Amino acid sequence: MKNKSTNLRVRLPVLIFALEVMIVVLYAVFVTYEDDANALVQNNQTRPMENSLYQNYPFFADIQVMIFLGFGCLLAFFRRYGFGGMVFNFLIATFTIQWAILVQGFFQFYYDGKIHLGVLNLIHAEFACAVVLISFGAVLGKTSPVQLLIMALLEIPVFGVTEWAVVKYLKINDAGGSILIHIFACYFGLGVTFVLYRPNLNEGHPKEWTSYQSDLLSVMGTLFLWVFWPSFNSALTFKGDDQHRAVLHTFIGLSASTITAFALSSILSKNGKISMADVQNVTLAGGVTVGASVDMMISPAASYVLGILGCIACMLGYKYLSPFLAHRLRLQDQCGIHNLHGLTGLISSLAGICAILLATEETYGPSLYQTFSHRAPPEGDPLLVELQELIPDLEAGLGRTAREQALFQVAAVFGTIAVAAVGGLLTGVVLKLPYLASPSNDKCFDDELFFNVPPDYNCVNGLQDVDYGPMFSETQTRLMLTEE
Amino acid sequence: MKNKSTNLRVRLPVLIFALEVMIVVLYAVFVTYEDDANALVQNNQTRPMENSLYQNYPFFADIQVMIFLGFGCLLAFFRRYGFGGMVFNFLIATFTIQWAILVQGFFQFYYDGKIHLGVLNLIHAEFACAVVLISFGAVLGKTSPVQLLIMALLEIPVFGVTEWAVVKYLKINDAGGSILIHIFACYFGLGVTFVLYRPNLNEGHPKEWTSYQSDLLSVMGTLFLWVFWPSFNSALTFKGDDQHRAVLHTFIGLSASTITAFALSSILSKNGKISMADVQNVTLAGGVTVGASVDMMISPAASYVLGILGCIACMLGYKYLSPFLAHRLRLQDQCGIHNLHGLTGLISSLAGICAILLATEETYGPSLYQTFSHRAPPEGDPLLVELQELIPDLEAGLGRTAREQALFQVAAVFGTIAVAAVGGLLTGVVLKLPYLASPSNDKCFDDELFFNVPPDYNCVNGLQDVDYGPMFSETQTRLMLTEE
Amino acid sequence: MKNKSTNLRVRLPVLIFALEVMIVVLYAVFVTYEDDANALVQNNQTRPMENSLYQNYPFFADIQVMIFLGFGCLLAFFRRYGFGGMVFNFLIATFTIQWAILVQGFFQFYYDGKIHLGVLNLIHAEFACAVVLISFGAVLGKTSPVQLLIMALLEIPVFGVTEWAVVKYLKINDAGGSILIHIFACYFGLGVTFVLYRPNLNEGHPKEWTSYQSDLLSVMGTLFLWVFWPSFNSALTFKGDDQHRAVLHTFIGLSASTITAFALSSILSKNGKISMADVQNVTLAGGVTVGASVDMMISPAASYVLGILGCIACMLGYKYLSPFLAHRLRLQDQCGIHNLHGLTGLISSLAGICAILLATEETYGPSLYQTFSHRAPPEGDPLLVELQELIPDLEAGLGRTAREQALFQVAAVFGTIAVAAVGGLLTGVVLKLPYLASPSNDKCFDDELFFNVPPDYNCVNGLQDVDYGPMFSETQTRLMLTEE
Repeated sequence: MKNKSTNLRVRLPVLIFALEVMIVVLYAVFVTYEDDANALVQNNQTRPMENSLYQNYPFFADIQVMIFLGFGCLLAFFRRYGFGGMVFNFLIATFTIQWAILVQGFFQFYYDGKIHLGVLNLIHAEFACAVVLISFGAVLGKTSPVQLLIMALLEIPVFGVTEWAVVKYLKINDAGGSILIHIFACYFGLGVTFVLYRPNLNEGHPKEWTSYQSDLLSVMGTLFLWVFWPSFNSALTFKGDDQHRAVLHTFIGLSASTITAFALSSILSKNGKISMADVQNVTLAGGVTVGASVDMMISPAASYVLGILGCIACMLGYKYLSPFLAHRLRLQDQCGIHNLHGLTGLISSLAGICAILLATEETYGPSLYQTFSHRAPPEGDPLLVELQELIPDLEAGLGRTAREQALFQVAAVFGTIAVAAVGGLLTGVVLKLPYLASPSNDKCFDDELFFNVPPDYNCVNGLQDVDYGPMFSETQTRLMLTEE
Repeated sequence: MKNKSTNLRVRLPVLIFALEVMIVVLYAVFVTYEDDANALVQNNQTRPMENSLYQNYPFFADIQVMIFLGFGCLLAFFRRYGFGGMVFNFLIATFTIQWAILVQGFFQFYYDGKIHLGVLNLIHAEFACAVVLISFGAVLGKTSPVQLLIMALLEIPVFGVTEWAVVKYLKINDAGGSILIHIFACYFGLGVTFVLYRPNLNEGHPKEWTSYQSDLLSVMGTLFLWVFWPSFNSALTFKGDDQHRAVLHTFIGLSASTITAFALSSILSKNGKISMADVQNVTLAGGVTVGASVDMMISPAASYVLGILGCIACMLGYKYLSPFLAHRLRLQDQCGIHNLHGLTGLISSLAGICAILLATEETYGPSLYQTFSHRAPPEGDPLLVELQELIPDLEAGLGRTAREQALFQVAAVFGTIAVAAVGGLLTGVVLKLPYLASPSNDKCFDDELFFNVPPDYNCVNGLQDVDYGPMFSETQTRLMLTEE
Repeated sequence: MKNKSTNLRVRLPVLIFALEVMIVVLYAVFVTYEDDANALVQNNQTRPMENSLYQNYPFFADIQVMIFLGFGCLLAFFRRYGFGGMVFNFLIATFTIQWAILVQGFFQFYYDGKIHLGVLNLIHAEFACAVVLISFGAVLGKTSPVQLLIMALLEIPVFGVTEWAVVKYLKINDAGGSILIHIFACYFGLGVTFVLYRPNLNEGHPKEWTSYQSDLLSVMGTLFLWVFWPSFNSALTFKGDDQHRAVLHTFIGLSASTITAFALSSILSKNGKISMADVQNVTLAGGVTVGASVDMMISPAASYVLGILGCIACMLGYKYLSPFLAHRLRLQDQCGIHNLHGLTGLISSLAGICAILLATEETYGPSLYQTFSHRAPPEGDPLLVELQELIPDLEAGLGRTAREQALFQVAAVFGTIAVAAVGGLLTGVVLKLPYLASPSNDKCFDDELFFNVPPDYNCVNGLQDVDYGPMFSETQTRLMLTEE
């Protein structure tokens, strides 16, 4: 009965052990501690409580919850694929982070022949991890853990190069990662799912439903993401007022998109009822839409409007665009990442460009050249000295105008989409190779294929009849209204 | 089959969009950034790491978890109303916070013609949110989301005025919010439920039970509230030793009430077994009871005793008072908020008054005039200068005696109860207006009324046999792959 | 029908009230505030934001989540013992912390005739709590809450004495608590379960399985432990670079053991499928294995290797050692704590010893004498003055060599194992006393014995209509008691 071609017994261990050997060798050769984690460079000048750990760790801890519990629960929404959603998320996330430490390390934290590791790198690695997990959403339930690990293995270098090019050469403003994280992840994921197209699944799949419990679990995932999203969007901003604004805008944007999602869910439903899929996904749109301008002086009202706009785009995407993409463009986007990350990411990029064009010294004061660091005067410019008297730790920039900065943002958006889509397509081709344990159509969305399932698996969620009796016990007297 | 009068399709979106227009206009006109979030006022005097963000954000993040995951899971205890408990909590909380930012902003953060927004306001807004969510507990399962939004819309201004009057004029000590949060929320909620009285529900309701999974989920909610309650009670105290004590007392009070709840649950049960409703609710009593004196030098032993007393009152309330209130006084208090927030709030207020009367300079040193800031000598008093040599940042007070302070506390308790109860009654009257989609008796505690439920809904939790036909509802159209 | 001998109605309340009286008296007589929580000692020298609260509270909050939600969910893996796992965890944890504050207080925070209480003590108490909860894992489902409270009551003093002797006299390096927490807890638990041996349970128990929902809940517990484990392992290290390294190593160790666990789970399974029990437990092995050397300069690659080694040992333990221990040595280790905490703790201790022997001034600089504080020159040594010029707050040590330190570590390991095992055996004897409501064999792993269960209890998880036959899949062989 067991399908040989999806047996993980050899494939998965061989792949994992190979990856581990690679990683441990590279770590041994290249990875050392950054100064704040290095005992050797501590001396009477270094004050322990000023260690960067204390600035970064609280944000890191919040993002940990988002990655492992937030994504994990959110992706466990399929009735018979809860193990797959939560546990493959766990597997991919842990591998991705190890790998991203190396890849991003080479691009961003490499000097003196070594990658210098600190909690800051871990935050960057968790951001890279979010990229892979978003892309995972497009192919959820249709891929084996072997395929998923290979996807992460390939996506991270593509992402690492893109991030490095955009950060180092285009030098954009994108504190919340709307471009680099959400847009990249979305179009990479769409590229993969395009190649992995399964025509039969367009007819619907008997296991592609939720259950009462899986819907609740998935909402919990949404809530974990919701409550810590301000930490995510603000983790890599400048410290001080920039980070403060990032928290405020994210919170306001999310809360605006949440109540909008309820309104739209009800209005777009034939019977006026609220859909849990909307509660689980569309509520989060505001967190993405404020991303690119999250640290700017856009005003609380603007972040509110961005939350509403993101929510509308996301909702209409789920309702009208996703079916179209699936049928016409072979884009079977399992979790609708194009709605929650693509459309909202594009709106966010546009809003960021507007915010850049509208930014003036009247609004920001000399901080303008800190938030938009590439607009700061270049080294040697007398204006720089003047500004440094007002803001001592201001660094030299490139002397860009607002318009120039806006054009670089545009370039980053299109460049990111192009690289991500091509990377995704190529990755998809690799994932179609044989021996990667790809599930057959009828075994999609089914935990039994890759997990030893508990004895009730075939009867949970109403698959079979259950015999009930009149056996209410005392627990139910919660309110004791019937007593006396 | 669909009851027209509870169809949300027009009502909910219209209400939400109207609220959003109102909020976005008011934000645009009135809300700006506080200085710590305002780039314009940053200069070489403002050190980024001394931004108030870093003092407030960790507490804010903890309270976020309490509001969204703690309350959300706790309120999901009904077998067939898990979506309602968790998701309406999400909806109301997000709206309430947006609204409270404005209302509290006008009363507490308004100057130069603007409300000045920072993370501190968000903490205040989440406290206001807790008020609404506690009141929600009284009418859980018997109200539509339209009614709940209107309740929040009305409760917040009443709360805002009360808070402003108590803080600005009565000037009480209530760090944990026992009076302003718990007592207010309780009597407001009782006022609402009094008006919404449904005699038929006194006979018990077939859906008013828990299930094995819903009980576990609800305990998780309890645990989220439990672990972060120290952050809640200490978020708005003075920094330093006051906040340190608030953490200690809350933790000790909670742990005392938890083990007491197990003892009482067993002793009050006919068969000696533990009831999950007690584990979910009564364990938390200690967090409320220590609230009003949480930052004072009451001693660890006293906070332990307060935890035990609160637990006993709360448990006896559930056992004997709730049934009485429901049958004799038309107070159908769905979650027993009068036990967990009312009785314990009163005990806490009393304990706070005792702690105030017993506070002396022998115990507190000059800090006495900081913890009890209204007892500090007034501006111009030579004693003030003397004290300021010992504690430099001591602010002038009102020169109140302990007794005067105690009397103001008493006034605050009675005033709060009166305003909350009247506000709740009037709100209840509004909620009885037609067109608010109030559920009929037989549709109470039933997710099917307002949600597209998954196919296993009618067979989960052993209510009925499973009839699987082609009844897949709209929820399942997550990907809409079968449409076109 | 009710078995009188397991009725809690008298036993549990009497025990709890007696414990409460004892605790409240001891708190009243002995417990006061530490200086940072004491208003009396605050003056114009004490800066509020430098209060130790702000250094310790974030770590404390994270550990709270681990103790109550992490352990709580993880231990709820039995299909019909979810209440027991999660709720008894809650009960024992809250009691243990109260009790540990006193016991550890006497040994570590006692001066001027008082125990001085601050958040630091709470962290220590939560560590003690983790010890009891780990031991609880060995007897999960086979003990009454009365027995569990008595186990906690006895285990804490034994642990307190051991901790005090090891810290004060042996003076070891063990930042992550591999020796004091994991090894102690494991051998104490094994001692208890040895005495409570139930031969009949070796044949397997019809309730000793998981369900689909309980497996998901348990994975959530694993994830809570996973994400906050870096806080656990670093909570009590030196501030600064030591704590920074502890975070990095824990994170890397855990992520290495996680992916290894997937590989091994698949390779050791007959059908190549992944077992949820492995995902729930073996993934965490790396957190323990890095513990004893977590703050040292072991290098990122070494922490990666430690994660892999710990995972392998843990997995082989579950597969081969646990069945052997159960059948041959009367050690029915319900959650396999010997694998997750014992074997990994031993590897960790060994790694710590290696790290100590290899530590040199070339790697650490003068910080060597801070991380290995007992190797610092003793008071009066001129070398100390020299070092203090480099690191001003260096404290005098004992002038131990690396080898001496290593020998003390060895002594600590063996001493801890011996004391823990004997303590566990004696505790087991006490737990066999009559009147402690010990469940009969057929009532083990069954919530109905001690809880009022909801009406769906007897039909959840498909117990009734399920034909059990020989279809138990490999997941259920958590203890593999029926193998051989």
